[in-house]
Order: sequence, then structure tokens, then C-alpha cells
Amino acid sequence: MKKISILKPVLDANQERARENRKFFDRLGSLVINVIAAPGAGKTSVIESLGRRLKSEYKILVIEGDIRGSLDSARIKKLKIDAIQINTLTACHLDAFMIGRVLPRIRKKYDLILIENVGNLVCPAEFEIGEDFKLAILSTAEGDDKPLKYPLLFHLARVAVINKRDLLPHVDFDPRRAKKEIRKRNPRAVIFEVSAKTGAGFEPFIEFMKKELRKKR
Amino acid sequence: MKKISILKPVLDANQERARENRKFFDRLGSLVINVIAAPGAGKTSVIESLGRRLKSEYKILVIEGDIRGSLDSARIKKLKIDAIQINTLTACHLDAFMIGRVLPRIRKKYDLILIENVGNLVCPAEFEIGEDFKLAILSTAEGDDKPLKYPLLFHLARVAVINKRDLLPHVDFDPRRAKKEIRKRNPRAVIFEVSAKTGAGFEPFIEFMKKELRKKR
Repeated sequence: MKKISILKPVLDANQERARENRKFFDRLGSLVINVIAAPGAGKTSVIESLGRRLKSEYKILVIEGDIRGSLDSARIKKLKIDAIQINTLTACHLDAFMIGRVLPRIRKKYDLILIENVGNLVCPAEFEIGEDFKLAILSTAEGDDKPLKYPLLFHLARVAVINKRDLLPHVDFDPRRAKKEIRKRNPRAVIFEVSAKTGAGFEPFIEFMKKELRKKR
Repeated sequence: MKKISILKPVLDANQERARENRKFFDRLGSLVINVIAAPGAGKTSVIESLGRRLKSEYKILVIEGDIRGSLDSARIKKLKIDAIQINTLTACHLDAFMIGRVLPRIRKKYDLILIENVGNLVCPAEFEIGEDFKLAILSTAEGDDKPLKYPLLFHLARVAVINKRDLLPHVDFDPRRAKKEIRKRNPRAVIFEVSAKTGAGFEPFIEFMKKELRKKR
């Protein structure tokens, strides 16, 4: 959507609702992560990979944001992980009000709430939803120039995951260039290189997640 | 951006400006294509491939829409093809007004104007810019479920290009399923399967483009 003069009040109202959401999550003691990436970067696959490795030790909820359908929440439920589907219909991102509306359905104490945003590198970065931090995923098939072209997301994301590292021999993607470009936007970014398909690279990522989860206990 | 009550007037005003753009393009006799895809699907690479194959016979202009930077217009200019860069800054799509503002810079008669939208499968589909038709690109690395998850674009796009077919042995992508899902949204969609990297599959696509270009003469 075009940014016009009404944007500031929209973002201010969103910010206020995000703070309400945050209070709710704090009462639950949940670590809440806003997962943002382009369509097809592997958001659901990375979330499945985290879920499989963490579910025996932690209670996990996944909130799926999609324009339409419930393909992704069905994938999560197959892993016996709780999932809530949000359909944004015409909106290209989740906002704090959409999250606010599903909070009454959260009746258990979850250690980890993973919120999968709509596939888009632009607007999802602009709307806080009450998360602890944003996690950006970039796949090797997309090209190493993406942090340059979508700077706000990579500036804001505390964690950046480079996914589909199994495709590296087949694509023109230089992980060093990608990491350099990410660090230019956010020198403190924590970066992991993984393949959700083969499972490679998840050990340090899981260690990081466990450290973050321990901080909430 | 969230769809709120101001959306209808915004889209109506956009539509009116799109009709003005259309009149301008009609006076030039140009075929104008709005190229829409996710970040990293290969929009610029497909445009480069078309440009290389058509530039000896047709006058081509490329209009590049990016949040920031001029990486893509620099790639096009390297091919000795004229390019205009638009930076949308915070907007996640091109609209008819952004195109309207660069029309005074178009001083030659172009046969073909390729407009590369911002990498996004949602909002770019909602804003007409004065194009003859929309061309959607889907890469095999993104997954064959994308037409299901972003239905509006695939409903509206007259042409759908499945790119990165060279990656098929390495990804879970069923081209038959993708085509079936595209045809569900638009039974008359013209679909091409190509690899901008290897050049495979471009012959029928170029034949189609030449037929469309002849209609304008």
C-alpha cells in the first residue's frame, strides 16, 4: 500500500496495540519471534526444523500469517505442535491488531511462540506485533543482493538465517557477500547458515534458541 | 499496508492515473508489461534474457522499481538497453502515479516497455500502472504452492513464467502441480518454463513476445 499522510497514525495505533500484545506475552513468559522472509525462502520449513528439535523440551505455539488458506498451519499441526492460522486477505503483512484478535485463543503457557509473517520483505518489517525480536530468512536461491534491496528488514532483524545452503553449488550466491551486506545494516546481527532440507547448520542455531529461552525462565 | 476505509479512493485515483499512463503508452505504440514476482525469483534476469534476444529488432525501455538503490537499472544499462530507476522508498509496490512521474523522461518511441515491480507477490497485483498485461514469475526454488498462497496475482497475470528450471533436480517443485494451480486461478494463463541462467525454454516465450509486439505495429 502506498504511504500517505494517514500512515503515521496507523503505525502509532499499531505500536500501542503491539505493547498490549507484549504485556500478554510477558504474563505467559513466552519468547516471541516474528519470522519474516520472501515467499518461498523457507519460513515454514525453518519453523518445522526448530519445532522438531525443541518440542520435547519446550511448549511451542506457531501463529501462521497467510493471505489465504491454511496449508502452513496444517504442516505445523502434523508435527503435533499447536498452530493458529490468521488469514490477512488483502493485507501484505501481519499487524498488532491481527495478533491481538487471536490472543484470547491462547489458553496455555507457551515457552516459544513463533509467528510466521506473510511472505514479503517490505511491510512486515514496519509493523511491530509484540515480538521479542524479528528473525529474517534469506534463501541462497534469492541472491546475495537482497539485504541491499530490502534494507529496513535487515536493519531491524536481530537474527538472520541464510537458508537452502544445500543449493549453494547450483546458484550464484556468495555467503560472504550476503553476510557483509547484512552486517552493514546491522553490525550486531546474529547470522546462521542452514539447510532446512538436509538439517545442516542447525546446531548453533538451536544452541542460540535455547539460550534465549533460558533467559525467559 | 493495512487495508482501511481509505483504500477504495486510493485505488480509484490510481486507476484513473493508470488510464492516463495507458493513453501515453498508446500514443507511443508501446507494448507495456508489468513484471511481478517475489524477491529473488529472477525478474531482472528474465528481463535481461528478453532484452538480449529482442533488442536487435525492437526498441526497448526497462523501468526498474526498487525500494532503494539502482543495482537493477545498472544491470540493464550494461546491455545497452535504456533504463529508468524508480525508488519507492517505503512503498512495497509501484503505483500509477510513480509511473506517471517518469513519463516526461520517455522521449523516444519504444516498441517494448518492461516495468519491473518491487519484489512482492501481494500489493503489486492490486495497483494497475497502465500496462497491457501483468507477467508473473515464479521460481522453482520458491515451491509449487505459491499460486495457492498468492491467488490474486496468478488470477490477474496473463503470462506466468516458471523460472530456474535448472534447479528442478535439487528442489521439491512439481511443475505439473504449479501449472495446475496457476490454471485454477486463470484458465487462460500462458505459461512458460525457462531458466534465465542457462537460457533453456526461451524460444516459445520469445515467439509469444514477438507475436504480441507485432499486434502493436
